[in-house]
Amino acid sequence: MKKKPLILITNDDGITAPGLRSLIKVMNQIGDVVVVAPDSPQSAMGHAITINNTLFCKKEKIDNGPQQEYSSSGTPADCVKLAVNEILERKPDICVSGINHGSNASINVIYSGTMSAAIEAGIEGIPAIGFSLLDYNWDADFSQCNDYIKKIVENVLNNGLKKGVVLNVNLPNLTKEKVKGIKVCRQAKSYWEEKFDKRVSPLGKDYYWLTGQFVNLDKGSDTDHWALENDYISIVPTQFDLTAHDYIKDLKLWSFE
Amino acid sequence: MKKKPLILITNDDGITAPGLRSLIKVMNQIGDVVVVAPDSPQSAMGHAITINNTLFCKKEKIDNGPQQEYSSSGTPADCVKLAVNEILERKPDICVSGINHGSNASINVIYSGTMSAAIEAGIEGIPAIGFSLLDYNWDADFSQCNDYIKKIVENVLNNGLKKGVVLNVNLPNLTKEKVKGIKVCRQAKSYWEEKFDKRVSPLGKDYYWLTGQFVNLDKGSDTDHWALENDYISIVPTQFDLTAHDYIKDLKLWSFE
Repeated sequence: MKKKPLILITNDDGITAPGLRSLIKVMNQIGDVVVVAPDSPQSAMGHAITINNTLFCKKEKIDNGPQQEYSSSGTPADCVKLAVNEILERKPDICVSGINHGSNASINVIYSGTMSAAIEAGIEGIPAIGFSLLDYNWDADFSQCNDYIKKIVENVLNNGLKKGVVLNVNLPNLTKEKVKGIKVCRQAKSYWEEKFDKRVSPLGKDYYWLTGQFVNLDKGSDTDHWALENDYISIVPTQFDLTAHDYIKDLKLWSFE
Repeated sequence: MKKKPLILITNDDGITAPGLRSLIKVMNQIGDVVVVAPDSPQSAMGHAITINNTLFCKKEKIDNGPQQEYSSSGTPADCVKLAVNEILERKPDICVSGINHGSNASINVIYSGTMSAAIEAGIEGIPAIGFSLLDYNWDADFSQCNDYIKKIVENVLNNGLKKGVVLNVNLPNLTKEKVKGIKVCRQAKSYWEEKFDKRVSPLGKDYYWLTGQFVNLDKGSDTDHWALENDYISIVPTQFDLTAHDYIKDLKLWSFE
């Protein structure tokens, strides 16, 4: 029998989030699990790291599962750094982040704490996946994702991932039977059209709440947005080399003299 | 005479940072400047946005320049959203972010608040540039960058930028005479090797400071790391489509049944 893989789990919704608890249960069936997750919600933290403040980290016992757990005061990316450098005795075989409460498809990948944890693991040379369910509710039914998540994780454990690439997996909010399958996609071109809700504090100071509406500009049927709208699970291979390689030759024609 | 361009300036070191003050002076020579910058340092904030808290924003008068200025309690990405949606009467012709105190070359682009502001502007369809000087000191000599920054901004105003691309510009810490020129580059493959400095609080709680050492894995002479080491200014065209397009066909061969 093959040695059990070492699985690092983190997220951005915090260590008590139902999406994380559900992911732990599935991963316990596959390998030895260590959880290092934020002690409070860290949604939309992007790839923030904590360099101007202290980081707390403590052992936790949240349920009766076999996993080891730690909570940290840091961001999702901090959690991965702490896990790899301070907590784990060896490099994990895989890092899984999530299950996020809400979509990280298309442009959301840029703002996502869930995906920043996966990307941080990727930078550290660990095969990594971010999972997100298209349901923002705290009591969403995450168990409907179990079989698909297991399949995707097993694929990554068996096949590995190309260096410099992590997976961004989004799951439609559907029962297993209604999901049509898995599509490997590109990130849809899209943005958030902001609307600031301006208010006045009791002391007369103006303040704002950021709200907004998602706008998809991309009619392609090869995008994550299309896949999710059409009842598929989307997998986008996601890289952290941000260079627009094919634009380099154009810029080289510019004159700076 | 052509109409003066409308220039939005932001940063991640905060509205009083000398790097920002220096950039304002240069941009005042080119166009009408509006500054919307964080009221406190926001380094390493990545692409964080504020969705679970209120945002304050107030008019500021910091020096006698002709620019309009606003400070915000938000992140660099929040500042761009606020500027575009609440403060500016029309879409700016360009957004410049910085000058950052310290490098945002190679993997640092992922963690950078300076670059996340530029990327946010790019997502909103605004040509954008992040500028960083390789000097972490608060009293660094930013004026040595002036002529180069002016040239780069004028190029972007004249040529535009491809949709989906912003520029990541890093300047070596050298007097103008010693800079050998400008290189258009790709992002060097690199990472931070973390070292956590573990301490104990007066109440007996363990805590950590994140420290680390930059590791460049990339021997290419076409990288930003190489350019800066060799006394060139680096420009990396930087995109927010994170899809690893050429890996899609490989992943499509995986079996999820």
